[in-house]
Amino acid sequence: MNAEIITIGDEILRGDTLDTNSNWLAYELSKIDITVSKISSISDEKEVIYKSIRNSLSRSQFIILTGGLGPTNDDITKSVLCDYFKDHLVLNNKVLNQIESLFKQFNKTVTVSNRQQAFVPSKCKVIHNKWGTAPGMWFTQDDKDVLSFPGVPFEMKNIFLSIIEIIKSKYKLKSIYNETVLTQGVAESHLFENLDIWMQKKPKNLKVSFLPSAGLVKIRLSSRNKHIFKSQLSKLKKQLNDIIYGFNNDTLQQIVVDLLLENNKTIAIAESCTGGAIQQLITSVSGSSKCFKGGMVVYSNKMKITQLNIKQSTIKKYREVSKQVAAEMARNIQQKFNSDFSIATTGFAGPTGGTKKNPVGTIYIGIVTPEKSYVKKMQIGLGRDYFIRVASLTALNIIRKEIIDL
Amino acid sequence: MNAEIITIGDEILRGDTLDTNSNWLAYELSKIDITVSKISSISDEKEVIYKSIRNSLSRSQFIILTGGLGPTNDDITKSVLCDYFKDHLVLNNKVLNQIESLFKQFNKTVTVSNRQQAFVPSKCKVIHNKWGTAPGMWFTQDDKDVLSFPGVPFEMKNIFLSIIEIIKSKYKLKSIYNETVLTQGVAESHLFENLDIWMQKKPKNLKVSFLPSAGLVKIRLSSRNKHIFKSQLSKLKKQLNDIIYGFNNDTLQQIVVDLLLENNKTIAIAESCTGGAIQQLITSVSGSSKCFKGGMVVYSNKMKITQLNIKQSTIKKYREVSKQVAAEMARNIQQKFNSDFSIATTGFAGPTGGTKKNPVGTIYIGIVTPEKSYVKKMQIGLGRDYFIRVASLTALNIIRKEIIDL
Repeated sequence: MNAEIITIGDEILRGDTLDTNSNWLAYELSKIDITVSKISSISDEKEVIYKSIRNSLSRSQFIILTGGLGPTNDDITKSVLCDYFKDHLVLNNKVLNQIESLFKQFNKTVTVSNRQQAFVPSKCKVIHNKWGTAPGMWFTQDDKDVLSFPGVPFEMKNIFLSIIEIIKSKYKLKSIYNETVLTQGVAESHLFENLDIWMQKKPKNLKVSFLPSAGLVKIRLSSRNKHIFKSQLSKLKKQLNDIIYGFNNDTLQQIVVDLLLENNKTIAIAESCTGGAIQQLITSVSGSSKCFKGGMVVYSNKMKITQLNIKQSTIKKYREVSKQVAAEMARNIQQKFNSDFSIATTGFAGPTGGTKKNPVGTIYIGIVTPEKSYVKKMQIGLGRDYFIRVASLTALNIIRKEIIDL
Repeated sequence: MNAEIITIGDEILRGDTLDTNSNWLAYELSKIDITVSKISSISDEKEVIYKSIRNSLSRSQFIILTGGLGPTNDDITKSVLCDYFKDHLVLNNKVLNQIESLFKQFNKTVTVSNRQQAFVPSKCKVIHNKWGTAPGMWFTQDDKDVLSFPGVPFEMKNIFLSIIEIIKSKYKLKSIYNETVLTQGVAESHLFENLDIWMQKKPKNLKVSFLPSAGLVKIRLSSRNKHIFKSQLSKLKKQLNDIIYGFNNDTLQQIVVDLLLENNKTIAIAESCTGGAIQQLITSVSGSSKCFKGGMVVYSNKMKITQLNIKQSTIKKYREVSKQVAAEMARNIQQKFNSDFSIATTGFAGPTGGTKKNPVGTIYIGIVTPEKSYVKKMQIGLGRDYFIRVASLTALNIIRKEIIDL
């Protein structure tokens, strides 16, 4: 089945707001075998919205509109839909109750314009919005559907998810077999080469997309055929083996925290060039306080010496960006915080700094595990933010493998 | 002048890739008084691309296409443009040289498909791409323009910026007076109330957009009229006064680092509930090593006591999330690292934790300046990531004001 997504709002066309709704919807629709054939962003004008609905319906069976359902004057989607479907507004008491109870919760009084949101076109099926004031609407005409959702991403997502099973059963859609394999540490071009033969041999009805981002490459597989999907996924897993760190919505930080908790182990982190980014990733996971013993950000040599007891002689002899300093940092932070694992980073994030031996982009990652300690040296290009991101993910992935190997 | 943006690629329609190009282009075009009337994302199909160009040209004078210019088989934008403009491909030696020198730089050999990228339609003006292999193309027909850029954001942006002055002079466009005022610490609804009278009185040809995100509200002003723009901007600045932390692309972390360096001051940071996020923001700024003395992430009570010398009695008497612990953390980290300023955070980021007195969302921010020390208590809602983000930005803004007040 073909679908189109239309996002409504001048703020998108002026570049003030990035439309993330379409991306999210397109992904969710692809999982239930609905093909999005077009995404449009259009302005808050009556005639423009009207024409867009008409044109989309001439091409596609299933249209999702987002935006333009707020309480202010420039929110006109509902009135255009009334025009389009030759309909009129009626008060929906369930929606009104929802609005009133929401306002009560926040100790606010319901204004006239908020009350207006409880009026809905008589011909539509109301999709209740437990997360905000504007309900979703579902029109059906001539075997085609037009769904209208509020533009607030949080509300839109929850409303859509509340009706996904209804959509699937109405159109007898089956979920596509769909899995995103997450890899770290191998460049996209390398992955392509590794997977060249598999890509050439794979059946046509298995779709494969490569989605690279800083330090990571995600490989999305999808197919309507269960057998093909399962066997090809298992082939891919075998071939990529330990460069896979997870699947779908997994994150490295969540996996590392989960593994530490499962194994009843702890970690401490000392960061120079990554400036707290690794600790920030770890502590972004709820429950990490149970396995993250603590950490330090030691930027200057003086602080490395006075706070983390790095020997002055080590820095003097090998410089602060060196294997030796990384090793000492990792060892000292592990002892200081009495943890099972530790990570330490020292390097040149750039754009300034760097030496002939260790140019900008050089990083030494010190690792301590209950069984061993070592330092990994890497060269990372392409700017400070990229450097910090790749270094942090690399360090987390090293720890992930070490915990698994325990 | 009206423009449309068309992004080409199945990866967008499948939800695998978020289209950020349209947002960036729309913003840049709005600054030079070009109104984007529609943004579309379409698939890599010949007929679809052809029709989209035709329909867009029937409505708008200026069309920008991005994507579909790569060296692989599904990149067909160039061949569709040839069809549309009844044109044929010719070898462009300057483009070929660019491709060859780029490949030489990375020690790679030019493949046949890469060489193919040097063939361009004879009727278009080639827009050279110093940042990649696919050149931009500019077609003009019947006083209308079709520009085609590669989809890689970095290349697209640089190519567009390289011709922005040509676009402006061709259409005698004047840059719009445009400024984004950045505020921290006041909710959007509060700002609305504060600015209600100003909004009602402001001239119609001043456009104002409110753009809220976690902890921040950006207010974008734009106008074609210099006098109105300047006088209204100055009124807004007066009214908002010290809740403005910067303008346009400023970030709080960059401003704080700049202020510290200008004043030859230093900072140290001890984080519990923000888990390194503040240090991560500070160290994301190049040159921050000169003012950031270092910091600690002390999650557990034990670590607060053993590493940061927080008195056991303070924690016992007041609990770890308290004014007293925040104050001691700030004082101790400042002394430990011998800095001029310090920040300390302790709170309940959630979703677990919290007490009756201090429910999830409570944070105490301890501050030390060369002149005083104090603790600010806040209540932040809406989830862990939001909590950490708002807390971090609030802390940075407090320090910003303190440095200015020195």
